[in-house]
Amino acid sequence: MTDMTTHPNQAASAWLADFSSALASHDVEAAVALFEPDSFWRDLVSFTWNICTQEGPQAIREMLTARLVDTQPSNFALEGQAAEAGGIIEAWFTFETAVARGRGHLRLRGGKAWTLLTTMTELKGFEERTHERRIKGAEHGAQPGRKTWLEKREEEAARLGYAEQPYVVIVGGGQGGIALGARLRRLGVSAIIVDKNARPGDSWRKRYKSLCLHDPVWYDHLPYLPFPNDWPVFAPKDKIGDWLEMYTKVMELNYWGSTVAKSAQFDEARQEWAVTVLRDGAEVVLRPKQLVFALGVSGYPMTPSLPGADAFEGDQHHSSKHPGPEAYAGKKCVVLGSNNSAHDICAALWEHGADVTMVQRSSTHIAPSDSLMELALGGLYSEQAVASGIDHHMADLIFASVPYQIMHTLQTPVYDEMKKRDADLYARLEKAGFMLDFGVDGSGLFMKYLRRGSGYYIDVGASELVANGSIKLKSGVSIERVNPTSVTLTDGTVLPADLLVYATGYGSMNGWLADIISPTVADKVGKCWGLGSATPKDPGPWEGELRNMWKPTQVANLWIHGGNLHQSRHYSQFLALQLKARMEGLDTPVYKLAPSYHVR
Amino acid sequence: MTDMTTHPNQAASAWLADFSSALASHDVEAAVALFEPDSFWRDLVSFTWNICTQEGPQAIREMLTARLVDTQPSNFALEGQAAEAGGIIEAWFTFETAVARGRGHLRLRGGKAWTLLTTMTELKGFEERTHERRIKGAEHGAQPGRKTWLEKREEEAARLGYAEQPYVVIVGGGQGGIALGARLRRLGVSAIIVDKNARPGDSWRKRYKSLCLHDPVWYDHLPYLPFPNDWPVFAPKDKIGDWLEMYTKVMELNYWGSTVAKSAQFDEARQEWAVTVLRDGAEVVLRPKQLVFALGVSGYPMTPSLPGADAFEGDQHHSSKHPGPEAYAGKKCVVLGSNNSAHDICAALWEHGADVTMVQRSSTHIAPSDSLMELALGGLYSEQAVASGIDHHMADLIFASVPYQIMHTLQTPVYDEMKKRDADLYARLEKAGFMLDFGVDGSGLFMKYLRRGSGYYIDVGASELVANGSIKLKSGVSIERVNPTSVTLTDGTVLPADLLVYATGYGSMNGWLADIISPTVADKVGKCWGLGSATPKDPGPWEGELRNMWKPTQVANLWIHGGNLHQSRHYSQFLALQLKARMEGLDTPVYKLAPSYHVR
Repeated sequence: MTDMTTHPNQAASAWLADFSSALASHDVEAAVALFEPDSFWRDLVSFTWNICTQEGPQAIREMLTARLVDTQPSNFALEGQAAEAGGIIEAWFTFETAVARGRGHLRLRGGKAWTLLTTMTELKGFEERTHERRIKGAEHGAQPGRKTWLEKREEEAARLGYAEQPYVVIVGGGQGGIALGARLRRLGVSAIIVDKNARPGDSWRKRYKSLCLHDPVWYDHLPYLPFPNDWPVFAPKDKIGDWLEMYTKVMELNYWGSTVAKSAQFDEARQEWAVTVLRDGAEVVLRPKQLVFALGVSGYPMTPSLPGADAFEGDQHHSSKHPGPEAYAGKKCVVLGSNNSAHDICAALWEHGADVTMVQRSSTHIAPSDSLMELALGGLYSEQAVASGIDHHMADLIFASVPYQIMHTLQTPVYDEMKKRDADLYARLEKAGFMLDFGVDGSGLFMKYLRRGSGYYIDVGASELVANGSIKLKSGVSIERVNPTSVTLTDGTVLPADLLVYATGYGSMNGWLADIISPTVADKVGKCWGLGSATPKDPGPWEGELRNMWKPTQVANLWIHGGNLHQSRHYSQFLALQLKARMEGLDTPVYKLAPSYHVR
Repeated sequence: MTDMTTHPNQAASAWLADFSSALASHDVEAAVALFEPDSFWRDLVSFTWNICTQEGPQAIREMLTARLVDTQPSNFALEGQAAEAGGIIEAWFTFETAVARGRGHLRLRGGKAWTLLTTMTELKGFEERTHERRIKGAEHGAQPGRKTWLEKREEEAARLGYAEQPYVVIVGGGQGGIALGARLRRLGVSAIIVDKNARPGDSWRKRYKSLCLHDPVWYDHLPYLPFPNDWPVFAPKDKIGDWLEMYTKVMELNYWGSTVAKSAQFDEARQEWAVTVLRDGAEVVLRPKQLVFALGVSGYPMTPSLPGADAFEGDQHHSSKHPGPEAYAGKKCVVLGSNNSAHDICAALWEHGADVTMVQRSSTHIAPSDSLMELALGGLYSEQAVASGIDHHMADLIFASVPYQIMHTLQTPVYDEMKKRDADLYARLEKAGFMLDFGVDGSGLFMKYLRRGSGYYIDVGASELVANGSIKLKSGVSIERVNPTSVTLTDGTVLPADLLVYATGYGSMNGWLADIISPTVADKVGKCWGLGSATPKDPGPWEGELRNMWKPTQVANLWIHGGNLHQSRHYSQFLALQLKARMEGLDTPVYKLAPSYHVR
């Protein structure tokens, strides 16, 4: 017992002490010497005012040379118990910089750092008013003319955007905008969230009716207010919608529903944006200092231009516009595409008695939901993880501590195991003609999500329908042309069709910028999402972080926020701190601002 | 260190082992011998299907003789670390009965039990579906005709009360009804909450506008979904109102707003209630098996019949109907009464420029809010308590473990300290003529709350206004008669008056029963609240528990729920379990059903 726990603590403490001492004496070489040759230092805002990973000692040397004097790191202290497994010691620590407090995670291998994560948790002097810092609420004593909470809240809601300008405007009020809004509210950064839908949660409510979250509850909490402990593993879309609406109200967010962002320009002279919105039909010009786009993980729906489509006599629409299966019982339905939306839509159509054919153009990664939960997420996001002390706060940091460059090597074994576990399903899918893949390097679903945001289906039942022929399959082909009552595939097959669904994905998020700001600004920001892995749909060069997400872009005062619920929760913390620092006029020199290599 | 922690654990474990062994062998005398002469055993449902305290070995002997064979207690196990202070060892434990699991708390003095608390936490086979038992939400696999969460929820809301009857109807949708509704929902007990107000939370929203909770946030959490950690110490009423509304939605409660309960009769033949309600103006007869009144901590407003009141030319109303101070700037206002509402209303009127006189008929206990938080509540409900590991779940049980018969002896030192700490304020109040008390035995605010629900003011600022004369005071007198533009006090003083507020309190909760069911049933149930302490407004005989609260009453299938947020949270657990057990047809023999000594 003593050997097991004392030794990792001692090793981690010794390393931290050496590191701290090297940094305190500005001895960059001594600090660099504490890292092994294959090391990584990922920083979330605390040293770099950026989200970036230094890969290897030389990059670490350069970063410290540039940032050490400014940052003034100090007070490194081990947090909790370090642990050793497989020759690797893992430890948590806290630290401070000149202006902030932070939390870090360390992996030691042979006494040297293999991975180091440093994250900013709060700015000194601008701490959230929680716990012992919470406000009193009641103002004791008699104060003639005092205003109540309700009066103040109503006055703020009426004033902001008109008599007073918000510091931030967030375009998009899904989980991303809402989570960021909640963080900003706690930090005292005034913000307006605009969304075209009437009520928070409508972006979920308006999706096809059978939709449930594909990620499990432990992965999906919003900041500050976790779901109750009886919340379903996979929450139905309308329940999530109601939660988001309640959350927006309770967190006192300034949420402008039924509001469309029409255009935005940066006014160089005034150093602020002019954001023109239509609020309930009336034009309002908002003038924030910072503009955040939080419109999901992707851009506009991409629909292929198919010859003859204009003359199609049935219904045709992109998957994002699919109204649900109710109207299609007994109808012949063709779904182009074979990722998540395609599978979900095919299954719902089949359940409602439609004749459904899926047209699979290229191979797809299938990850059965149960296997995914157990093999890929269970260690960090599950009831077992919570019971063993890993709540979602800790899980988020462990997740963030894995450098993107080596993440696929840790993912591959998961999917090797999945291949064995689900061998029967995979064999039957292939027998049915389905083209399977597990990513070019076998690293599976999550790497596909990070690299390209597509190419997979989390199987919640549709794969069985494909395997047993309930959902008909045409694979290795596409639609060559659309006829008035059918489609012709590239192999010459003609499929009669009353409904044609284009489950053909989405463009890059900077498509929104082109439309609302300008193509020039969109191209200056460049492609969003993806790592530069030089795998399909994720062209190089290697960038080491998700492009443009939650960090400064090539366009000052313009930010991209988004991702799934996990990412919206975790990275909103760092985006909110970056915005707060700017509002307070702190010096925020960005280290290694990422260049833009691809326009969309 | 070893001595400090090992010894209490050993002593507590040894006692539990002896106790367990005596109970297992049905050796009542051996069990009774483990209690000291001045001992108490408080049981919340687990042994007695009642809420009752056995005071002394003979009462314990009788209870065990009656209940041991049925209850089949077993598996007593120490939970966490026992602790010793001042010669008393405190320990937590878990246990089981034939049908339930429970948690207990033990205080040992000289090796014998001084206080024992046993509480039911869940019924075996009817556990809440939380954590690893939570539902999946998504139904994986393809199921033609399946319904979504939203469709099922909407169907339920449309059906319940019409095509299908709820097992429980709860009259009153404040925090009491809502908290109980949430517990019942989790237990799968169908329930409808009816409330005359349109929206959950309106009972708070409609109060005077400066109102904030008088109890601090750590004391006020609802079940299952604690307030976020930045919630104000004293939440403003409208913020609480919004929280209750959100909570009702998120917990999926069947809440009938704008619904008035007109009458209720028990149908002996059908063994169910017929509860006639007006829902949005339409009469609906609900037929639940169980009927719960959750209308607060008191009954109808009590307004004295004063000669001449009919001819008063100004405004006059009970404090519960006071619209707030806005209309009374420059007006002469007389407030009859000197408890919480009287002080709050006087202060708000003064803040708005009114000329205010408080008429104090009898002495009042003043407890400055800061002192109350620090001296009376801080040990259990505060940021410090949470930091030391005492969350509100644990605090509720520690609170529940103190027998009512000796509670005042533990409260008196708190108020002795308050007298010293706030000596200056008290001296100035007395100099201004204010009649002070600390309860007949000096036990202060909380005992007054339990015994009579009145007689105090939690000072959040008005006492200073009384002390410095801003609020004028006439004490030791009452109003003898009301004149058209003034009141005449019992000492002959004539006070000109434009407004007359009767802050004269409320009747017993069974007043509601008289009105909605019948005076006969109300009198059979008897007075609610109070302990039988034979102190002012709490006549004896000693009953040992709050009359009729959260436990079986003299009228089968009729229950009283209520109290502050703390009580609504904690005791809803035990009321919900009692209702669930009955719904499932478990045998629930009530030990020592309390008699009714007082009609109102």
